[in-house]
Amino acid sequence: MAGIVLCGGNGTSHSAVRLFVSCCKSRRGTLNSHLSLFSERPSNTIVSPVGAGWYCRATGVRFASRLAGGRTADSRLRNNTLAAAGAAIVAGFMAGFCHFQKAEMASRTAKDKEGEREILEKCKGFMAAPVTDIEVLQQKKGDMSARMEILIMETQAAFCRALEEVDGGKFKVDRWQRKEGGGGISCVVQGGKVFEKAGVNVSVVFGNLPEEAARQMRSRGKVLKGKDGKLPFCAMGVSSVIHPHNPHIPTMHFNYRYFEIEQEDGSKQWWFGGGTDLTPVYINQDDAAHFHGSLKEACDRHHAQYYPDFKKWCDKYFYIRHRGETRGIGGIFFDDLDQPTQEEAFSFVKSCADAVVPCYLPIVRKHLNDSFSTAQKDWQQVRRGRYVEFNLVYDRGVKFGLATPGSRIESILMSLPLTARWEYMHEPPKGSQEAEMLEVLRNPKDWV
Amino acid sequence: MAGIVLCGGNGTSHSAVRLFVSCCKSRRGTLNSHLSLFSERPSNTIVSPVGAGWYCRATGVRFASRLAGGRTADSRLRNNTLAAAGAAIVAGFMAGFCHFQKAEMASRTAKDKEGEREILEKCKGFMAAPVTDIEVLQQKKGDMSARMEILIMETQAAFCRALEEVDGGKFKVDRWQRKEGGGGISCVVQGGKVFEKAGVNVSVVFGNLPEEAARQMRSRGKVLKGKDGKLPFCAMGVSSVIHPHNPHIPTMHFNYRYFEIEQEDGSKQWWFGGGTDLTPVYINQDDAAHFHGSLKEACDRHHAQYYPDFKKWCDKYFYIRHRGETRGIGGIFFDDLDQPTQEEAFSFVKSCADAVVPCYLPIVRKHLNDSFSTAQKDWQQVRRGRYVEFNLVYDRGVKFGLATPGSRIESILMSLPLTARWEYMHEPPKGSQEAEMLEVLRNPKDWV
Repeated sequence: MAGIVLCGGNGTSHSAVRLFVSCCKSRRGTLNSHLSLFSERPSNTIVSPVGAGWYCRATGVRFASRLAGGRTADSRLRNNTLAAAGAAIVAGFMAGFCHFQKAEMASRTAKDKEGEREILEKCKGFMAAPVTDIEVLQQKKGDMSARMEILIMETQAAFCRALEEVDGGKFKVDRWQRKEGGGGISCVVQGGKVFEKAGVNVSVVFGNLPEEAARQMRSRGKVLKGKDGKLPFCAMGVSSVIHPHNPHIPTMHFNYRYFEIEQEDGSKQWWFGGGTDLTPVYINQDDAAHFHGSLKEACDRHHAQYYPDFKKWCDKYFYIRHRGETRGIGGIFFDDLDQPTQEEAFSFVKSCADAVVPCYLPIVRKHLNDSFSTAQKDWQQVRRGRYVEFNLVYDRGVKFGLATPGSRIESILMSLPLTARWEYMHEPPKGSQEAEMLEVLRNPKDWV
Repeated sequence: MAGIVLCGGNGTSHSAVRLFVSCCKSRRGTLNSHLSLFSERPSNTIVSPVGAGWYCRATGVRFASRLAGGRTADSRLRNNTLAAAGAAIVAGFMAGFCHFQKAEMASRTAKDKEGEREILEKCKGFMAAPVTDIEVLQQKKGDMSARMEILIMETQAAFCRALEEVDGGKFKVDRWQRKEGGGGISCVVQGGKVFEKAGVNVSVVFGNLPEEAARQMRSRGKVLKGKDGKLPFCAMGVSSVIHPHNPHIPTMHFNYRYFEIEQEDGSKQWWFGGGTDLTPVYINQDDAAHFHGSLKEACDRHHAQYYPDFKKWCDKYFYIRHRGETRGIGGIFFDDLDQPTQEEAFSFVKSCADAVVPCYLPIVRKHLNDSFSTAQKDWQQVRRGRYVEFNLVYDRGVKFGLATPGSRIESILMSLPLTARWEYMHEPPKGSQEAEMLEVLRNPKDWV
């Protein structure tokens, strides 16, 4: 797996590049073999409602178990061929290991086996098979990219289950492939009982960094030295936007991601980024205090300066410059986090990801049955229009996505609300609750 | 007036810059005095419904006539002061003319007077007072910037009246000022009988070209050499987007504009740009043929190559890259038009502007009473979502506006629909009318 090579490689520039390329191939092979399981459907198709369960519990061997399903002879043949190709690539990958590595694997400890069992058990709870083959995740369980992929899949599953419980509906699960390398799992509820639109997306992509993306990164101070103009990268993340029907339940967004870039001299840059932020339609002091308090708690476990710094960063980032207002009441936001150590940075990101459910779900439950007027619904729609403005004009993630060839547009624009409204010269009456909301957006407050 | 100096000046670099600055001041003075007429209201306020008529027919002297209205003593005082200041600046401007010019003015011919009367008469039909003072427009009637300002004001009025006739409602008229120089008149109908949202905007702005705008221009090949990094510019245009309720009536957009930039050596660059394009929700061959046919007729009067070239340009420009589809069925689009002569280019732009009403209104009338289903309305809303995507992600005018300090955001984003919708993974059923529309957007056709 590319990420593993990038993270762990101590080889020369040349060998690192070779390993990177061979592992990308390996990853692509396993990806193709996954997708072949659903090859009767066009690509980018809804794979299964979550209730069906993606993992066949009757067998531990996924290729075999999935291929045994009721397919036509033709598709079985195709699937077998692709699966064999995938298996061959994995086998090739394994065969490429040096003698020392083989010996090391032969002497796997009971602890290793236990770790692999744990990963398998975790995977069973995911919304779909992870982008990277489970066997590869097991083999590379100590590497950051494998650990992060498991974290983002866990976060997706935990959040989706919590939302399903409160909504009563089920997420549609899409498993998709990026031609240039990688893929993802998009979970969406549209027109649910509580949620007008809720999306929770995982993506794990790799390849050569597109020029536009490199330009964006350099513009924020990154020094990237590619070889022959190429910058092999690996990026993964979980992101979500929840737009409820009821204007008294705020919209929530979070995103946690990990990035690796390989440079000319074989050195790698890695960093984490992410954040969680709230966009209410009406101000509720208690909700704001609970939300920010939960995030502060997660941050304080790692560094006393994280919450105040990342809270400010969030207000600054989610700013709709042309309106002179923030998108919502913020939360935390950070990027390019590459210290104090990779382990500590990961641990912090995990704390943030674990805080998603407890910081949002109590607010959802509290307002489930709040009544609202047409005027309040209209104000929600106007605020959703601003949400669209931010996401399409300023959001770095959306810009990166739209500029990355082969990006899955539906997953990037999943963040847009189902409906939005633009009223010319809309200005709420003085002293109204809408004006109070606007005042906070124009002058961000401290909530804890 | 800045535009006049830029267009007509044969002076040295230094004197041209001086004249430019002094004329900007003059323009700002007259702008302030206009706005002072409405000084009880906050800036950017709706000035008057069109029915009230902006021009007091009882007197030819606008300052005096407006100031005689029923204002408070305080506002009267303020208005008088500002009007006097405005008048003083105009007087100062006049006093600055050299002896030769004075003599020339004294010997004004009857033809000159007739021309000035004509301008006054034209102005009476406008939706509001033009951005530039009428007296200045009269004095500079031969200059391109004055002629273009009159054309865009005429186009706005003609289109608004035609839309009012079919809708039965009245446009709200906003007159606004740009702190950095210039202003505009925005006419908007929202929630009309026929039109969900219809905006027709005129703007005349000047000052120093913002860096971001210069970057955009350079990126399309313009060579701009500023003095001390400054590029004095003057830009004016009329633009409009019409979003009807009925999904069988297409959305229409047009924009005609004129640009002048003064460079380090005192030389000026000028060019025209613009276009008219249609965004139907459902394909109607006859409508498309009528629309494109009207535009072709306007183009053919000037050059046989204009329509085919500008039709292609339009399809290319209104392309939503991340969706792989055009925004609508196109029309014409051109930019940087600075040949064969300024006179010929203006004449072509005038033909295009004159074609706006006849190319669109017959289509509106034809479908006024077409019935439609909820599903058809939903599809319209999805298409409106794509309209928003294009405008916020790609549109050069919107980008220029959002990047220009002091821009009037409400006028720039007036083009966004009242309501829009984003459905995850929306794909119309094969063989449906919606799929037929999408096919055309994915593979632009020739219509005439």
